[in-house]
Amino acid sequence: MPGTGKPTLAVVGATGAVGSVLLRTLSHHADVWGEIRLLASPRTAGRRLTVRGEECEVLALSEAHEEHLAGVDLALFLVPEAVAARWAPIAAAKGAVVVDTSAAFRGDSDVPLVVPEINAHAARVRPRGIVASPGCATLTLVVAAGALHAEYGLDELVVTVQQAASGAGRAGTGALREQLALVTGSELGNHPGDVRRAVGDHTGPFPGPLALNVLPWSGAPAADGWSSEELAVREEIRKILDLPRLRVTATCVRVPVVTGHSASVHARFERPVTVGRAHEILATSPGVVLYDDPAAGDYPTPADVVGTDPTWVGRVRRSPDDERALEFFACADNLRKGAALNAVQIAEHIAAELSGPSGTSDR
Amino acid sequence: MPGTGKPTLAVVGATGAVGSVLLRTLSHHADVWGEIRLLASPRTAGRRLTVRGEECEVLALSEAHEEHLAGVDLALFLVPEAVAARWAPIAAAKGAVVVDTSAAFRGDSDVPLVVPEINAHAARVRPRGIVASPGCATLTLVVAAGALHAEYGLDELVVTVQQAASGAGRAGTGALREQLALVTGSELGNHPGDVRRAVGDHTGPFPGPLALNVLPWSGAPAADGWSSEELAVREEIRKILDLPRLRVTATCVRVPVVTGHSASVHARFERPVTVGRAHEILATSPGVVLYDDPAAGDYPTPADVVGTDPTWVGRVRRSPDDERALEFFACADNLRKGAALNAVQIAEHIAAELSGPSGTSDR
Repeated sequence: MPGTGKPTLAVVGATGAVGSVLLRTLSHHADVWGEIRLLASPRTAGRRLTVRGEECEVLALSEAHEEHLAGVDLALFLVPEAVAARWAPIAAAKGAVVVDTSAAFRGDSDVPLVVPEINAHAARVRPRGIVASPGCATLTLVVAAGALHAEYGLDELVVTVQQAASGAGRAGTGALREQLALVTGSELGNHPGDVRRAVGDHTGPFPGPLALNVLPWSGAPAADGWSSEELAVREEIRKILDLPRLRVTATCVRVPVVTGHSASVHARFERPVTVGRAHEILATSPGVVLYDDPAAGDYPTPADVVGTDPTWVGRVRRSPDDERALEFFACADNLRKGAALNAVQIAEHIAAELSGPSGTSDR
Repeated sequence: MPGTGKPTLAVVGATGAVGSVLLRTLSHHADVWGEIRLLASPRTAGRRLTVRGEECEVLALSEAHEEHLAGVDLALFLVPEAVAARWAPIAAAKGAVVVDTSAAFRGDSDVPLVVPEINAHAARVRPRGIVASPGCATLTLVVAAGALHAEYGLDELVVTVQQAASGAGRAGTGALREQLALVTGSELGNHPGDVRRAVGDHTGPFPGPLALNVLPWSGAPAADGWSSEELAVREEIRKILDLPRLRVTATCVRVPVVTGHSASVHARFERPVTVGRAHEILATSPGVVLYDDPAAGDYPTPADVVGTDPTWVGRVRRSPDDERALEFFACADNLRKGAALNAVQIAEHIAAELSGPSGTSDR
């Protein structure tokens, strides 16, 4: 950290959908960084992007230019899993702490999986120099679930996550908008498959038509009929909450929303719950906004919370049949808390540690 | 049943969204009816509608013309709750068996609540001459849940129902299409509330914007933060399955789909389950189509099953943590099985009984 005394940050994958949100986030957060270096695939390198009000040329991430990763204190990776698997260890070997938003390392026992509101401490122990940020489905609900867990002790989660198109990147939002143009102004949606025929092969990254539809699939086929996304929600929540045997069943569906994941959550606890106390907990938890007065029309919706940082929670009810079970509905921006923001929060925790007086961390 | 020997059917509320689906259903089903008489509010009376290939003038349902209900053997009510509460007892007093699709009588202990695939027998005992058909949210999943219950014994249901716009009638689909026209072709959906501002007061029967959104609300405010729709799912499933103490927690959300409800279901049973046996049960259950091979892209979606009669089921998985819990995803046309078709099925059972040799039923 020569000169400024502040750490050098590399943003790897600066030109994608999450990258552009991340650059805006960096511009609006406290200025903890010295140099901010932008990298992307050679295909998009050379573009000029604005961060902290200044234009910055995007450098190529390539074997021919590994020096672009030299002198970096912290590298934020916003790239596909395969790219992260290849390049994160290289950045770490060059001395950077890597915060990776892909699924490449989330399941590894020697890579912490961090949601700062819940387990910021875990980011201090990183034997491989890599810290992972969870997936957007998990981040839709885990901050709220974690806050309630701290009070009541989680016993089981049954969740349905409604994922927005931008969870599949710019190709996802592009496909949704293209499909909407094909079905809007018509009478489509009344006959079997008419939306599918109108959309044709304009499905983009989705396995079927998303406009005027709900697709009960997200991710890749995994064992026993599960999707990779659903099993990931289970594994990630267990790891973040340090509850390796927590019962979690997730269903991930894709809905025709641009950005903003939502989740319908059934949470069963070890101790009896009350809505009043749950409201108090959620209203005072960092990163959570309680918005829960349905008679007044107050509950979060994806279209209302897109572009905001917190996890919004409403529709808190206790099961009429089980004094230990709560239902709630959570919404978060899948590009912010679901991706860029959580990564920046992790990075800022590590920056504070790197800039601190101790130097006692593992790396 | 003079002349034809077949019972006379009155369709009350013939001009609404469910009414038009019902008239098509009557035209395509076995011809068990003698006269079919169409009634509606005085506002829409006088229209001519086609049923069984013949034009038929819609008669007024009004105090001045109670004779329109005379000589009716079976009256199918497809009208709002308040209208049904007023007119169903009048039709019953005139000698008709009433099949009502509103919520007016569903909770009454002396009115059976019937899903023919599950409890057709219950329709034979009708002390008030009224049989109720469940709500569309319940009908999205109860046939499949009931089939599995018969094998495994249900212990608990946790469901999220994604309800389509037409569940709120023609005003619902009209509002969704109007909203889509306001947001399509724009970059809306990226900033907090931009969809809400663009939609303005074009929300129709919904409490907020439905285009590019998910609204976690359906029905009226009920006790303790629940919506009437969510509590109705619980009470209706308990009554249909004759499990008065079954644990049921439902979350009802509205999604930007024209027609076709879907449900993410977590079902816990008294006995251990296997996906193989659950597949066999669902594949051979009346009214259910199993469509479950996600690796091949086979799972039901609302846009694919709209306009069809059965409940479609896919995404059947066993909980990795609980050998007694199954997840599945069910889709059904909320105007067909969710309303008109179930009512017609009930009516046809009663017609067979009325036409039968015994005459031993309560009415």
